[in-house]
Amino acid sequence: MTPDLSRLCVHTITTKPWPIEVAMDKYAEAGIAGITVWRQALEGRDIEKVGEALRARNLSIVSLCRGGFFPAKTATGLAEAIEDNRRALREAAALGAPLVVLVCGAVPGQPLAESRKRIADGIAAILPLAEELDVRLGIEPLHPMYADDRSAINTMASANAVCEQLDHPLVGIAADAYHIWWDPALAEQIAIAGEKKRLFAFHVCDWLTPTTDLLNDRGLMGEGCIDLHGMRTLIEAAGFDGFHEVEIFSDRWWAADQDDFLSRIKLAYFEHC
Amino acid sequence: MTPDLSRLCVHTITTKPWPIEVAMDKYAEAGIAGITVWRQALEGRDIEKVGEALRARNLSIVSLCRGGFFPAKTATGLAEAIEDNRRALREAAALGAPLVVLVCGAVPGQPLAESRKRIADGIAAILPLAEELDVRLGIEPLHPMYADDRSAINTMASANAVCEQLDHPLVGIAADAYHIWWDPALAEQIAIAGEKKRLFAFHVCDWLTPTTDLLNDRGLMGEGCIDLHGMRTLIEAAGFDGFHEVEIFSDRWWAADQDDFLSRIKLAYFEHC
Repeated sequence: MTPDLSRLCVHTITTKPWPIEVAMDKYAEAGIAGITVWRQALEGRDIEKVGEALRARNLSIVSLCRGGFFPAKTATGLAEAIEDNRRALREAAALGAPLVVLVCGAVPGQPLAESRKRIADGIAAILPLAEELDVRLGIEPLHPMYADDRSAINTMASANAVCEQLDHPLVGIAADAYHIWWDPALAEQIAIAGEKKRLFAFHVCDWLTPTTDLLNDRGLMGEGCIDLHGMRTLIEAAGFDGFHEVEIFSDRWWAADQDDFLSRIKLAYFEHC
Repeated sequence: MTPDLSRLCVHTITTKPWPIEVAMDKYAEAGIAGITVWRQALEGRDIEKVGEALRARNLSIVSLCRGGFFPAKTATGLAEAIEDNRRALREAAALGAPLVVLVCGAVPGQPLAESRKRIADGIAAILPLAEELDVRLGIEPLHPMYADDRSAINTMASANAVCEQLDHPLVGIAADAYHIWWDPALAEQIAIAGEKKRLFAFHVCDWLTPTTDLLNDRGLMGEGCIDLHGMRTLIEAAGFDGFHEVEIFSDRWWAADQDDFLSRIKLAYFEHC
């Protein structure tokens, strides 16, 4: 049996040591079908040309990471956040990415309910441009350990609530196993998201025991405790048929040989996703 | 106005460098009204005599920390967990502590729903002894970042569900601000716990930005982003009138002068709780 790579996508941040010019060749050689591009990887590049180069290698451009960070304490901060998100939308359109993933933001000390209101307002403010460019917006619920300064949206239920409020076909959810695996309401909230056609993306990696760093100690699939098979089953039962995106922030893996790491990603994907 | 210390309790782990013999004198001199004793602090001591010494200093013994860790992968492991929890109940009774706090446990890779079932079974198994000794059991929902190996009960809703299932006046909840502050369902779940007379304890500290260690980088009240006033208001509106327990795991504070730290705890308590 030939392993099926047709739905495997890798995030450029996963192989951070490789510039995007290297990553695109390596991914294509490895037979990986999709790529999600982090904005840092585009710095100093002609974004349209990067998009052409990716398509020339038969890489599906799955999404652009990331917009968001809508809440701010000042009016200037709020306006800047909107502007940055509009830039992200234009970059996605230039690249040919159909989706911008949103890490929605939080400000330490700002009540989370207030942050969520600002997030909804922020998304509403950029929706006209998203419509014009036909780019979708994927709210990524972040693990509650990031509720202080990264996102006030920490569960699928909160993401569903914001989607419900905005009620727009371009607004959905990027579900990342790392952030949501622990949630007792997961099955029911994934089902709701599926029913409402809001499942825009599915990210995978693993949760390590022990986790030694809150940001950059994610595991390769199979190294940790997340039931990725089970989560994929839930997500697909809810109607999702898109890419399985490998998004691993790891000082350990970034320090390793990236060719070897990419081989391990493929093996881990076959075995655990 | 004389600051009110009558509901301030400090956990022995908060001032870990002090043996309990030192801690009890320091807390009493500082006018702190309550003490929660960690089991490590009792090692090698005659527990009844420690209890007498605490009462002689007019310290209210608020609880014993901690029992729990019910889930295990083997039958032997499950039986050992029950035995250890029975020991904790006997230690609490010997000390004169009316409550054992439960960090309920989780096993990496064990489905969390299964762990929660084992937790409920484990608590049920020790309830006869708890009744005999008249010691209460406080389920402490732990932050989702501990769902891998510390607790499968990560929200007030999950704790309420286990209490509901066991439906016993000795089974309630130890609500710790650090673990639950991010939860969008917090107000509603605290209200339910209050209505059902399940709010057995209230722990305070703060969430630091950035948090550099998942276990031992908690903040002193006011150093972080938790709205402790707001949470106290919720808890007391729900009928809780017990102690405000300062439980801080912090390599930074443990490395500091503990007398100075205790003074700062009192000041932070007046200002932020």
